[in-house]
Amino acid sequence: MTALSARALRGLPEVRPGDDLAELVAAALGDEQLRAGEVVAIAQKAVSKSEGAVVALEDVHPSERALELAAAPPGGRAKDPRAVQVVLDQSAEVLRAERGVLVCRTRHGFVCANAGVDASNAADGTLVLLPADPDASARRIRARLRELTGWDERRGVAPAVLISDSFGRAWRHGQLDVAIGLAGMHALEDWRGRADAEGMELRATWLAIADAAAGAADLARAKDSREPVVLIDGLQRFVVDEDGPGAAALLRPLGEDLFR
Amino acid sequence: MTALSARALRGLPEVRPGDDLAELVAAALGDEQLRAGEVVAIAQKAVSKSEGAVVALEDVHPSERALELAAAPPGGRAKDPRAVQVVLDQSAEVLRAERGVLVCRTRHGFVCANAGVDASNAADGTLVLLPADPDASARRIRARLRELTGWDERRGVAPAVLISDSFGRAWRHGQLDVAIGLAGMHALEDWRGRADAEGMELRATWLAIADAAAGAADLARAKDSREPVVLIDGLQRFVVDEDGPGAAALLRPLGEDLFR
Repeated sequence: MTALSARALRGLPEVRPGDDLAELVAAALGDEQLRAGEVVAIAQKAVSKSEGAVVALEDVHPSERALELAAAPPGGRAKDPRAVQVVLDQSAEVLRAERGVLVCRTRHGFVCANAGVDASNAADGTLVLLPADPDASARRIRARLRELTGWDERRGVAPAVLISDSFGRAWRHGQLDVAIGLAGMHALEDWRGRADAEGMELRATWLAIADAAAGAADLARAKDSREPVVLIDGLQRFVVDEDGPGAAALLRPLGEDLFR
Repeated sequence: MTALSARALRGLPEVRPGDDLAELVAAALGDEQLRAGEVVAIAQKAVSKSEGAVVALEDVHPSERALELAAAPPGGRAKDPRAVQVVLDQSAEVLRAERGVLVCRTRHGFVCANAGVDASNAADGTLVLLPADPDASARRIRARLRELTGWDERRGVAPAVLISDSFGRAWRHGQLDVAIGLAGMHALEDWRGRADAEGMELRATWLAIADAAAGAADLARAKDSREPVVLIDGLQRFVVDEDGPGAAALLRPLGEDLFR
């Protein structure tokens, strides 16, 4: 039977710049062992903080453009122009700047509000950025976890690492966690061209399993507590030895974007 | 501890028009009992089939517009103009018709490819439509399950019903299951204005939990087997007695749409 389970790892301390995140995870696991093919899902903010991807507002000098974009929209609130400058610095393109919302394409290629820059759960006067290369972060954490747990190949495929962040959607309310970094797991499951239970070819069936896994992990986490790490069991069929192309495989290329 | 688990219900027959879906679920459960506050996640196609939301292509007469839109794009394949007509009939608005893709706003307000019309897992020469009112379908199935299982209030909150479909995303590859119908579960969890672990106000934290649950359910389901129903445990904190506003609460109103 296909079954899925997800549980938050407890006992992690608040993550600080320079922390070895894999070491914190290994310590929090205690006597518990990671299972073969398990997925270790980590909230982006913990990864960013450990990598020091944090900016102090007092060090930021807003440009003219940032000052313009920070002005209050009709009926809305003004933004801190320094925060807007940080968003611009993280963006390859601003897709929309309306109704007080900045929808940006980040330098990685992610399309999201404020280029993923976030003040929540950050120390006062600072902003947390997305990791510079979240797929590389995932690969690094996976390798380190393998090392720290003394992973023995005979136990099976080493746990995969998935880094998630909450993104809004163009036509739906609310945010949903998606995969922004990935190592050792397929991002997509491709059923295009395969036959379904009635022998008909399945059309347009290309599943973003890493994004679904990110969402599942978030459901197992209490948002106001310090539970950035969730262990997901039951996705073994998508977990592989090679780190693979990561979450970058989920990005729709610019040339196929119908909604710029 | 917050923990989530999802398991596909086995032994369901192929769903036919007129079938009582709740009855099929109750029969497939056998001796197993639904738990209080569990979420019964059902793939849209099973609901649509049971409701007879199916069109035979031979009964469709394509309009001029359908014939135009069906023409092959450069380097692409032509579509069946009758299938395009069915998509148009289901659409309130065609947002994009480029590269062989029809992105539509359905009459319910969902934005998705082909207005949710699908030929996969459908009988030859037929297309499956979205349910006419998926929230009403969810409420009906929930009430019927409550009745068939002789749900006793002393056992706790009756299981919620979530109807999901796989939608593409504007900027990411692959499809992801989202909630299109819902009864007895909050669609969104609102943390806006609450304080996080460091006492800072969480900004823009409005989680589309019903969509995350739909994605989690899909991970517990084998796409080529007949497993339209998945039981999700661990979301009790979002499940309530009242059926509530359903998945309609997830729709971003037209006036807030920046990407038409």
